[in-house]
Parts: sequence; structure tokens; C-alpha cells
Amino acid sequence: MKSPFTVSRIISRLKKYPFREYLSGWILSRKFSRHGILIATGGRPFPKVINKGGKLTAGNCQFYSGVRLEIGKQGYLEIGNGSYLNRNTLIVCEESVSIGKNCKIAWDVIIMDSDLHPIASSPILHKPVQIKDEVWIGCRCIILKGVTIGQGAVIAAGSVVTKNIPPFTIWGGAPAKFIANVNTVESPFFALQ
Amino acid sequence: MKSPFTVSRIISRLKKYPFREYLSGWILSRKFSRHGILIATGGRPFPKVINKGGKLTAGNCQFYSGVRLEIGKQGYLEIGNGSYLNRNTLIVCEESVSIGKNCKIAWDVIIMDSDLHPIASSPILHKPVQIKDEVWIGCRCIILKGVTIGQGAVIAAGSVVTKNIPPFTIWGGAPAKFIANVNTVESPFFALQ
Amino acid sequence: MKSPFTVSRIISRLKKYPFREYLSGWILSRKFSRHGILIATGGRPFPKVINKGGKLTAGNCQFYSGVRLEIGKQGYLEIGNGSYLNRNTLIVCEESVSIGKNCKIAWDVIIMDSDLHPIASSPILHKPVQIKDEVWIGCRCIILKGVTIGQGAVIAAGSVVTKNIPPFTIWGGAPAKFIANVNTVESPFFALQ
Repeated sequence: MKSPFTVSRIISRLKKYPFREYLSGWILSRKFSRHGILIATGGRPFPKVINKGGKLTAGNCQFYSGVRLEIGKQGYLEIGNGSYLNRNTLIVCEESVSIGKNCKIAWDVIIMDSDLHPIASSPILHKPVQIKDEVWIGCRCIILKGVTIGQGAVIAAGSVVTKNIPPFTIWGGAPAKFIANVNTVESPFFALQ
Repeated sequence: MKSPFTVSRIISRLKKYPFREYLSGWILSRKFSRHGILIATGGRPFPKVINKGGKLTAGNCQFYSGVRLEIGKQGYLEIGNGSYLNRNTLIVCEESVSIGKNCKIAWDVIIMDSDLHPIASSPILHKPVQIKDEVWIGCRCIILKGVTIGQGAVIAAGSVVTKNIPPFTIWGGAPAKFIANVNTVESPFFALQ
Repeated sequence: MKSPFTVSRIISRLKKYPFREYLSGWILSRKFSRHGILIATGGRPFPKVINKGGKLTAGNCQFYSGVRLEIGKQGYLEIGNGSYLNRNTLIVCEESVSIGKNCKIAWDVIIMDSDLHPIASSPILHKPVQIKDEVWIGCRCIILKGVTIGQGAVIAAGSVVTKNIPPFTIWGGAPAKFIANVNTVESPFFALQ
């Protein structure tokens, strides 16, 4: 029995989360076009998907209570393996939002690729948001349209991100400004000092 | 049959929103001193009005779930025709908050005309908030007491507004700063760059 | 009958809050190691304590709906007499968070003494948060690890506090900056201008 899928291995993996979180995740997964194993954690309000005709894919991901995914007609929201969205995180995807692998998205985060409304007589603007692998977004951040966040970047709590963030850097504030590089700083939040 | 209120016209208008949103809006409207047709959208938690004896009027307005209106004894909260308050928006009105016509108030916005508490031995300060017609307030903004926001102004997501905002300008940040004029900018959020 | 605990005095004190708030507070108090009279105000969602093995003490305190206290294995969260936490306030305590007496913590406040995640290969950083007596924290503030807020200080709405705040001063913004002294300013929010 060299197969990696022995019964004991499956059982030990299943024990990582309570059974009800797999069950909730499975119910949630039916709103996804393509998906791995989804875990829905934290009870009510259950994560909510409002899909007006777009595409929604996820790897093995965890969604906490109150998460809300709004996908427009032309929207394509993609969440990579090993990433999670913590409580009450909201993603508005009218065109394209891609979240990489092993991203940590904290609670109360808002990610939007659209203004949702026009300014004066201009058309409504959408610009894709890209969040690369291993990005950590602190609680209550707002990530606005057109932003690319590079691999391994860290966004401090309460930031509003309106510019591209280079990989392995730490940014914070409203609007977010450069704080430090990942390797030269003790802690992203403290660095805000 | 020249009357604008033909049966077919009424029916087509009623179809704009689901019937339950009119019904919820009608239940909500009983907390208003004067009101047009109110629409309550988005289910629970139902919009909440906590009126300690003030006055609350609205035109034809839409309120999303989680909206909370707190009106003090001397408060006068007025919301113009065609405006909406999105999810979880909170208005604290101890003296006077007036919102104009066709305003777009996004989700998680806080509007307060009072500090609610005194500083040291001073009295509690209230100053009226005026939001003129066609103002667009982005998600998760905080509008503090004494602020007047001019017609057609746009407040970028996540801003804290502590000063008067001139008409047809775009402001953002915490505290909010001038970004651009409405006619000269591609998009208010992008302009934050 | 010189005793201060005459029946009439007890009754008048009990009348300050509805009976159900005492009852909810008593249910809540069973999650505390040591506590005075707790009041749980505002109905659902009921305040939530997630204690992984730490210590949680409070004097006579008031907790509004949606408050969430997360105490880690080594955490010690202490809340002084006469303080309250308003709606949806979140405290994350992995090491030590102490809140003094008569503090006013407004709604949607986040207080964290930990990053909760490591940066790169560093260990996860915790640093104690101290909030001294009579501090007033405005709505939707974020107080980050290692911060001491001096007695009687005022933090304006929507601020992100990353530095120590001296006593009797007013700070605001993201990140928070000095605005004024408590005795020289008309109002903390207006002072942000």
C-alpha cells in the first residue's frame, strides 16, 4: 500500500477541520465553476456568493463567516491553493481579481476591481486586481482597482492600497506608503512608527 | 387615459424591485415622520431606526441591510429623493444631518454630527452635516461633524472627512485630502496614486 | 439602616439597565476568570469570548453586541471598572492587553497585541498593549501591538495607532499623528482639520 491516499492519511487530513466546516464548504463550493476542497469556518453569517454570470474558481481554500464574493457578468475571480479569506472579507469582481497561492487575507478586507459607478459622464472603470502568491493583507485593508501586489508583500492593518506594491515589501497607511522590505523589518505594524 | 398613473405604468415601476423590498420598506417607513416610497433591500439584519425623539424624513430612498439610523432628541435627519444608503451604513444625528438628492452612500459608511462624548469638562459638541445633491461617498468612509460636502463631490473609499469638501471635487485619505476635480480625473480611486 | 446596600439602593441601581442586560452579562461573565457586574447590551450577535487558555478579567463593565474577545494560550486581557466596549469591537490578546478604568471604546474598534502571523522566517511578534484610565477611542480605530495610550488621551475616529500616545493628547489619522492637547482643543474630530 504505497498509495498516498491510504485511509489513515485521508482521515488525519479530514481531522484538521471539523466535519461541519467541510460540509459547509461543500455547500459553498456549488457556487464555484471549479474548486478544490473548500472549508467554510465560523458559522453564521455563512459566506455568500453573488454571481451575476461570471466565473469563480478556487483551489483548496478556507472561507470564514461573513465573506462576500460579488462577481459581475464579465467577472473572473480566481483564488489559489492554500489561501484563506477571513471574516467579512468582501471581493467585488467586475472584470478580474486573481489571488495567488497561500495568501493570508485578514478580516474586514475589501478588494474591488471596479468603481461600480461612473464619475460624471465617463464610463464605469474596471481594472484587474492581481494579488500574487504568499501575500499577507492585514485586517480592514481596502485594495482598489488596477492594483498588483507582488509576491510575499505585506499590507499593514487598516491600509488603503491604490498603487502597485512591489514583491517582498511592506506598505501601510491610507493611502498606503512604503514602510520597509520584508527582510529588513522586525514587524510590519510596528514599522509604521 | 392621459393620466401618468395608468395601471401598466404603476406595475412596471413596481417590478423594479421585488415585492418583499417594498413591503420591508413600508414597515421601515413607519419610523419616518415623512417619507416617499422606501425600499429595504438585502434581507437581514433589517435596517434599524433608533429615534429618541427627533425628526426623520426621506424621499423615495433605498436602504440596504444593516443600515442604522440613530436620531437624538433634537436630531433632524433628512434624506433626499433618489438617494440610497448601502449595507451597514450608520448615521448618528444629534442635531442635523441632511443628505441631498440622488446621493450614493456606499457600504460601511459612518456619518456623525456629534462627538457623542465631551472632552474634559467641555460640553458635547454637535455640528450639522450637510451632504448636497449627487454626492458619492465611497465604501467605509467616515464623515465627521460640521462637514459640508458640495454637490457632485466624490469621496474615495476608506476616507475620513473632517473638512468641508467643495462641489465637483474628489477627496481621499485619512484625513481626506484634495485629489482632483471631477472633470479632470479618470477615476477617483486611481487618482489616489 | 446605615448600610449602603439597602434594598432601595440596589433596586435603583438595577433599574439603570434592563434586566435582560444583566442576565446576558451574567451569562457572559462565566467566560471571565474574575469579574464585577457585567452588562451585555444590544441583543444579537451576543458578545463572544474565544479563550484558548489565557486569563480574562473585568470590573463592572459594559459590552455591546458583536464584541469579540480572542485570548490566546498565554494571553491576559484586563478591563477596568466603568469601561465599556461598544458594538463589534474586537480585542486580540496573545500576550497582554490592559484597559484601564472608565475607558470609552467606541464601535468597530480593533485592539491587537500580536501580528498573528510571522514575517518571512521571524517568529510571530507579540507586544503588550496598555490603555490607561479614561482613554477615549473613537469608532473604527485600530490599535496595534506594543502601543501604550496615556491617561485621558483621545483617539479620533478611523485612526490607526502604531506609536505610544502621551496622556491628555488627541491623535488621529492613519497612521495616527498628534493633533492637540486635551485642554487646548475644541473637539478632537474637528481638530483634524
